[in-house]
Amino acid sequence: MSITDQLVKFSMVEVPEEAAAMMRLSLFDWAACGIAGAAEPEFAAFRSAQMIEDGPAHVFGGGDLGAAHAALVNGTLSHALDYDDTHFAHIGHPSVAVLPAVMALAETVDTPLTDAIDAATIGVEASVLVGLWLGRAHYQVGYHQTATAGAFGATLAAARLLALDKVQTRHALGLCASMASGVKAQFGTMAKPLNAGLAARTGVEAALWAQAGMTAAQDGLSGPLGFGDTHHGEAADVKLPRKEWQISEISHKFHACCHGLHAMLEALGGAKVEAERIEAIKIRTHPRWMSVCNIAAPKTGLEVKFSYAHTAAMTLLGHGTGAIANFSDEIARDKDIIALRASIEVVEDESLSETQSLITLTLTSGEVRRLRHDLMTPMTLESRSEKLRTKAKALLGEERSEPLWAAVIGNDLDAVTECFSGK
Amino acid sequence: MSITDQLVKFSMVEVPEEAAAMMRLSLFDWAACGIAGAAEPEFAAFRSAQMIEDGPAHVFGGGDLGAAHAALVNGTLSHALDYDDTHFAHIGHPSVAVLPAVMALAETVDTPLTDAIDAATIGVEASVLVGLWLGRAHYQVGYHQTATAGAFGATLAAARLLALDKVQTRHALGLCASMASGVKAQFGTMAKPLNAGLAARTGVEAALWAQAGMTAAQDGLSGPLGFGDTHHGEAADVKLPRKEWQISEISHKFHACCHGLHAMLEALGGAKVEAERIEAIKIRTHPRWMSVCNIAAPKTGLEVKFSYAHTAAMTLLGHGTGAIANFSDEIARDKDIIALRASIEVVEDESLSETQSLITLTLTSGEVRRLRHDLMTPMTLESRSEKLRTKAKALLGEERSEPLWAAVIGNDLDAVTECFSGK
Repeated sequence: MSITDQLVKFSMVEVPEEAAAMMRLSLFDWAACGIAGAAEPEFAAFRSAQMIEDGPAHVFGGGDLGAAHAALVNGTLSHALDYDDTHFAHIGHPSVAVLPAVMALAETVDTPLTDAIDAATIGVEASVLVGLWLGRAHYQVGYHQTATAGAFGATLAAARLLALDKVQTRHALGLCASMASGVKAQFGTMAKPLNAGLAARTGVEAALWAQAGMTAAQDGLSGPLGFGDTHHGEAADVKLPRKEWQISEISHKFHACCHGLHAMLEALGGAKVEAERIEAIKIRTHPRWMSVCNIAAPKTGLEVKFSYAHTAAMTLLGHGTGAIANFSDEIARDKDIIALRASIEVVEDESLSETQSLITLTLTSGEVRRLRHDLMTPMTLESRSEKLRTKAKALLGEERSEPLWAAVIGNDLDAVTECFSGK
Repeated sequence: MSITDQLVKFSMVEVPEEAAAMMRLSLFDWAACGIAGAAEPEFAAFRSAQMIEDGPAHVFGGGDLGAAHAALVNGTLSHALDYDDTHFAHIGHPSVAVLPAVMALAETVDTPLTDAIDAATIGVEASVLVGLWLGRAHYQVGYHQTATAGAFGATLAAARLLALDKVQTRHALGLCASMASGVKAQFGTMAKPLNAGLAARTGVEAALWAQAGMTAAQDGLSGPLGFGDTHHGEAADVKLPRKEWQISEISHKFHACCHGLHAMLEALGGAKVEAERIEAIKIRTHPRWMSVCNIAAPKTGLEVKFSYAHTAAMTLLGHGTGAIANFSDEIARDKDIIALRASIEVVEDESLSETQSLITLTLTSGEVRRLRHDLMTPMTLESRSEKLRTKAKALLGEERSEPLWAAVIGNDLDAVTECFSGK
């Protein structure tokens, strides 16, 4: 069965509770990232330039637009901080492509939040599967999977939400094949988050246009002269999920810094030891990270985001690493952090995987403690919820993050989208 | 100098009079195709679904939208009949990607029509050059040059029209690199014309967003991980035009049928002989066309579009081949045409090029006449103008085509766009 045939069929399956529960947490995290992202001064002029119409869909930072336009803006703003969820199977950020499409359409056609979450789950899963089908060759040559695979995920989610029939869903995927785009040349520029926004808009438009009778190739994704053929797709063998869904392995960022530091920060988070009792710290990490995030003496907030020693000292001295604002030029100059940093040694260890970190803590008492963490360690939903709430508090302040949490948990679509303005 | 550097520089050159004069004719032809395309019942629901906002830009078939949205709809509708201009150097339809962008922006910022035509000339030229730079490999693997190269042309045209500076123009081209898309899997579906509309919208958005401060890759087209690298671009050596512009070789369609019939129809158009004086007709054509458009006894209007014998008989009996409506199921059954058809023989001739046709006409008097035509024969602007006016009359009726002609010739932007409603 072609990937297209599989996707059409998949758009109609029942979503397991555990998968939807994970998606709900991603919705909360995505909205927090979007509200925070809308406050980025760099994007203010672009955001303003988009507010040219009225519509039913709330936009991060305030105002509302038509569904397609809102998806574009919300997708862009929610990826502006690069703090949203990641899936490492195909290497992409699923929520920023799928959720803006789903939420804008849900507001447009007034769907219950539970149905929107089901649609988003289908879409996130589909984006990972399409990404796996396109394969590493597609990513390596320069396509941005968040945007390309993401557009197909957003399209399938939108088709599900609008309850398109099989023929319409096929046309929607066909239309997506002419619209999905986005290259990695954009990394490091504002166009990287824009790629996510474009994917979200594609999902909305492909589904709405198919609903309005627009036709397209019968198999624009895997057929002749289609997306896979042209975009270096590997056409890898991909199976639709049965029991285990890909979404169960989604990664949420809990620290506003390089992903290479996260295992170490998680390990240290359990240390519960006062800084003055520490004699020496040895951090072991996978060799790959040494050239990525081991700046010994960072001079700016940006450099702090790539420093094992500095962020380790920050954590031990009680400076949160979940808040964007904490990665400031001031913290790079903090005397206490710099002093503690001197007792930290970072060494590579080939026996560790890229997601593992091992720490040896020697106390002034002579006691030696070993801490370790693997980012792949399964986390309970409760623990993940707590961590995401802490992250959102750091991003938005409690007075804005907790109403968002309550709205998501309370299945209240309007209450969720009312939080988008960030007020 | 990279293609991007060349394009940025090219966006600011002075446009030669002859190039602009050709563009003006393409503007007239494009608008006639768009007005006629808007009447296609197949596209009515899609068109209606787009009319969700008010804006400054007129839309084919009536109503107005914001610039980006109008470009999308007008690009799609003007390519709906596949009757618009073609450039064979890169194989694409330049006007349907570039003109919708230029005209919608011109209405938005109130530009004189002469400046809009200059911007469009830059854009059409750029689209052909980018198409040549991407090369035949890009086209053969399945990309739709009308849409991909067309998006870059539309972007450069929009940048010129908005008078973006060099930095903004570079960002606009960079943004385009993440948005240009469109695959040939769509041929034969409504998504083929949609590809043109998407390219036009990309031009408008890339330029407007760059103007609003959105940044992108420094060289999204020819830089690392950019459009060329990812989209099977050949990076062929391309020189910007000096004296001879590519636009001078643009092809306009004067017959609403397969391009393979056009040389024969042009040759026969000069016959000036009554059907009853004809004893026999021998049509010689390039072998490639024999399997494409040599249906001996067409049964439907669609089949007539692919029949040498039937369209030759139509022409000799005075049935125009410029009007879409003339390719009806009735004309397929016309007794006089079928009778004359019997005296026509079609043979392949390897000595002819694909753009040539040679006809031997034997009259009842015994006289033998030879007629020939090559579509590559240069045509004076006057002759081209006459042919395009005749085509537009056949498409729209004289009461609508002649005011459009007067508005284009009179450099009256508002009068041109007021014709878009087709009323």
